[in-house]
Amino acid sequence: MTAICFCLTGFWCCCHWAQPPTDSSSHKKASLDRWEFSQNQPTPRHYLLPAKNGEEPTMQFLLEVVDILTNYVRKTFDRSTKVLDFHHPHQLLEGMEGFNLELSDQPESLEQILVDCRDTLKYGHNQYLSHLFFNQLSTGLDIIGLSGEWLTSTANTNMFTYEIAPVFVLMEQLTLKKMREIIGWPDGEGDGIFSPGGAISNMYSVMIARYKFFPEVKTKGMTAAPRLVLFTSEHSHYSIKKASAALGFGTENLILLSTDERGRVIPADLEAKVIDAKARGCVPMFVNATAGSTVYGAFDPIHEIADICEKYNMWLHVDGAWGGGLLMSRKHRHKLCGVERANSVTWNPHKMMGVPLQCSAILVRERGVLSGCNSMCAGYLFQPDKQYDVSYDTGDKAIQCGRHVDIFKFWLMWKAKGTIGFEQHIDKCLDLSHYLYTKIKGREGYQMVFDGEPQHTNVCFWYLPPGIRDMPDGQEKREKLHKVAPKIKALMMESGTTMVGYQPQGDKVNFFRMVISNPAATRSDIDFLTDEIERLGQDL
Amino acid sequence: MTAICFCLTGFWCCCHWAQPPTDSSSHKKASLDRWEFSQNQPTPRHYLLPAKNGEEPTMQFLLEVVDILTNYVRKTFDRSTKVLDFHHPHQLLEGMEGFNLELSDQPESLEQILVDCRDTLKYGHNQYLSHLFFNQLSTGLDIIGLSGEWLTSTANTNMFTYEIAPVFVLMEQLTLKKMREIIGWPDGEGDGIFSPGGAISNMYSVMIARYKFFPEVKTKGMTAAPRLVLFTSEHSHYSIKKASAALGFGTENLILLSTDERGRVIPADLEAKVIDAKARGCVPMFVNATAGSTVYGAFDPIHEIADICEKYNMWLHVDGAWGGGLLMSRKHRHKLCGVERANSVTWNPHKMMGVPLQCSAILVRERGVLSGCNSMCAGYLFQPDKQYDVSYDTGDKAIQCGRHVDIFKFWLMWKAKGTIGFEQHIDKCLDLSHYLYTKIKGREGYQMVFDGEPQHTNVCFWYLPPGIRDMPDGQEKREKLHKVAPKIKALMMESGTTMVGYQPQGDKVNFFRMVISNPAATRSDIDFLTDEIERLGQDL
Repeated sequence: MTAICFCLTGFWCCCHWAQPPTDSSSHKKASLDRWEFSQNQPTPRHYLLPAKNGEEPTMQFLLEVVDILTNYVRKTFDRSTKVLDFHHPHQLLEGMEGFNLELSDQPESLEQILVDCRDTLKYGHNQYLSHLFFNQLSTGLDIIGLSGEWLTSTANTNMFTYEIAPVFVLMEQLTLKKMREIIGWPDGEGDGIFSPGGAISNMYSVMIARYKFFPEVKTKGMTAAPRLVLFTSEHSHYSIKKASAALGFGTENLILLSTDERGRVIPADLEAKVIDAKARGCVPMFVNATAGSTVYGAFDPIHEIADICEKYNMWLHVDGAWGGGLLMSRKHRHKLCGVERANSVTWNPHKMMGVPLQCSAILVRERGVLSGCNSMCAGYLFQPDKQYDVSYDTGDKAIQCGRHVDIFKFWLMWKAKGTIGFEQHIDKCLDLSHYLYTKIKGREGYQMVFDGEPQHTNVCFWYLPPGIRDMPDGQEKREKLHKVAPKIKALMMESGTTMVGYQPQGDKVNFFRMVISNPAATRSDIDFLTDEIERLGQDL
Repeated sequence: MTAICFCLTGFWCCCHWAQPPTDSSSHKKASLDRWEFSQNQPTPRHYLLPAKNGEEPTMQFLLEVVDILTNYVRKTFDRSTKVLDFHHPHQLLEGMEGFNLELSDQPESLEQILVDCRDTLKYGHNQYLSHLFFNQLSTGLDIIGLSGEWLTSTANTNMFTYEIAPVFVLMEQLTLKKMREIIGWPDGEGDGIFSPGGAISNMYSVMIARYKFFPEVKTKGMTAAPRLVLFTSEHSHYSIKKASAALGFGTENLILLSTDERGRVIPADLEAKVIDAKARGCVPMFVNATAGSTVYGAFDPIHEIADICEKYNMWLHVDGAWGGGLLMSRKHRHKLCGVERANSVTWNPHKMMGVPLQCSAILVRERGVLSGCNSMCAGYLFQPDKQYDVSYDTGDKAIQCGRHVDIFKFWLMWKAKGTIGFEQHIDKCLDLSHYLYTKIKGREGYQMVFDGEPQHTNVCFWYLPPGIRDMPDGQEKREKLHKVAPKIKALMMESGTTMVGYQPQGDKVNFFRMVISNPAATRSDIDFLTDEIERLGQDL
């Protein structure tokens, strides 16, 4: 066996290293030689750094990085900076102006590491931070949130037990309770956990629902349950579909619900499909209602869906990954009315509330099911005979083992802004999207994808260049229009001025979806966006 | 419906806010009043900050936070600092010296935010960074890694598409390829992705295996497959069990394999259990071989397990979350010999390689199965008609949608240390554990949990206080010994000097598990640990 082992270390060849020796005594010697080899080299400056001391060369390096980062932040907020400087993958891989992405066996100097940091920021986009970036649901840069994230990575701990993260564990508990109070669950009772993103939070909801109704699936698998079906809107986020596949339900057992012209679930369609599924011998188990759909920003009618869930004994999950933030606004929270009737809620502070990525919570109304669903009582981590109250060891609730500290940046932002500050943030973003909607509704060359005021900050529209504006409706016009948004976006990215998303939806050809989650955006930024669309789309 | 909606906003009561009005015109007015209200207040300093500008007050605040953090790092590396200052949950919740964890509606001043940051670090432990913290598999603080994490959070982007994270996406691809080369897959071919921790990486492996053998489960669910069984060591990490539960296999269909006295799977037991499962009409599908078990640090014999997997057509996964790092060492990589025969490998650079949390990779030998398993082709995110090569849009491979940038800190550390630097890190940690093993083996009062040199840095031992050292073997001695490790650890945490883990395993009563992953530890730290154990355990 030993011979095979050492032979296999020949894989080091691909790293251009010498073949290791083939018996353990010479192996040991070679190893010592190597140590001497590196000892005899002049010590590169970096050897002073890794975790060895807190002395000035180490701290000096860190402060040089801080200098690079603060300059970057300053530049990002400078309104004359381009949103992006686009390069194709092959261009970056070939090495832009000496920026070498390849890893090597030998260390680089610390000076080169600083250059690498600068290049990473230069060739990565600074768009996410920009007030002119309307491409994704998470944008902007909150300096308090950033400070929180820097502190988190300095503490470099892990959420699984109280003993190693006492303050963060308590912050998570208090913040989740506050979120449950805002949802409207009595006294903020219930349970929850922060997870690595809305897709995982949604996956949790399906797992918990299954555990609630069919706890034996945990031990016996899906074959112990009848044929279970899940329901979600045809406009809902694709993570519900991913969860159906991953958890063993199968995507065919996720039934898509029809929506009205504004993308909201039609409750009668849900009930009809529940009845139909039962008639086919299936067991309807779970309904996802979306609060703020990804494309239209639609809010499903939660009360009416909750009535049907109660009638047919199904779990009601509200996916508020995008729309949950509106709960913080007295003006807009009515859009989620009925959310307090949900069994579970996904809510991503890293979207509408401007918290740095990643920060997503799954909140559960009933205590016990989250931990019941996931706990495995690993003896090496969750010892019952510790000297403190081990109910604070939250790790066994999670599908993760190690869990990144996502809470601190959010807690710190909440401290700094207060609930009222989040409300102002959200109201401002919705005011801006109202401004955009009002501006382009009825303006020549624009056509709204659906009628009426958007419910969230999503404004969906087509821009029709003059050349196709007067074409008769029909296949040719549709085909031309389908190409307009991709073309304008490509031109935007090449000129680096702004960025906005587009997509088709159902039988609708590619249209722009403008979203605003960055409170640093202004009305003049909106004006700039429409000017750019018109400038770039003029001759298409 | 409208009336119900507004009524429900009364949940704001729990936030001590005024009831909102009940019709939309006065609603609008009240909303304006509120804006005026906050406009008329003196503007708190924090309002200058959130993402509005890159000017000096903003930058000044950030630099004050940096000052707090660098002081913390300096103090952490100061060997006279206590590892921890333990407080029970109720003590922290009651507010230690004015440290108030509760969130409120109104903002705090920036000065208070700085105090909150200091208090968080003070009452959170600084143990994770300490050279005297031997409690968990991830420890230490690498300043290059920390710089990488600070840059990552400043960029605040997301891994799902090339257009928004071009440099990070390429870094991930190149680094995964390098890891696959080191595993030994020809030309580093294959696939992979960084995931939020080893448990999720292991979950991926089970999902991918199922997709490879039974792709129809993705659409039809687990009922489309025969009764599938999975195999893993009784010493393996509990995440394999969590995956069995979550993915719909059921924990009873995860068959635990017997191990030898050092915690390594007995291949003959695997084959016998495969044959037995087949005889019971089950389909053996997946075997997890652990490379570096959590408690003993054991390495399963991969070659012999691979032979059985090939014979019975099963997927071979190697869970190298803890032991994968040893692949970077020419001296120790032979412990994973045969890993190149695995179909998938979990490897957590955030454990043995000292990368800040979170940094875990799932690596797959065959291209196509990872994306085939997870892709849902969401039109709003992964448009095929973009102007660049969309094969670089990696998001659809993931079970997540948004995905934190875990790659940069790792890439930067690799640049700074070179492959050779990681090797030195690993060799040093293993040398230290060899020192501990040699020191306590045969020393009075110590008893090793298993015979022979540990394979990883895990050193498992009992400390027998003088009072029970000479007791005859039997139940009474076992009961007394079972209480020793928890008691010594509690005393350690109270005195704040050091920290080390303990657990029972099978029929073995509580023993210490010492692990070393922080290259800042020294022989004198090891001496200090044994001195502390003897000092605190003297009178038990």
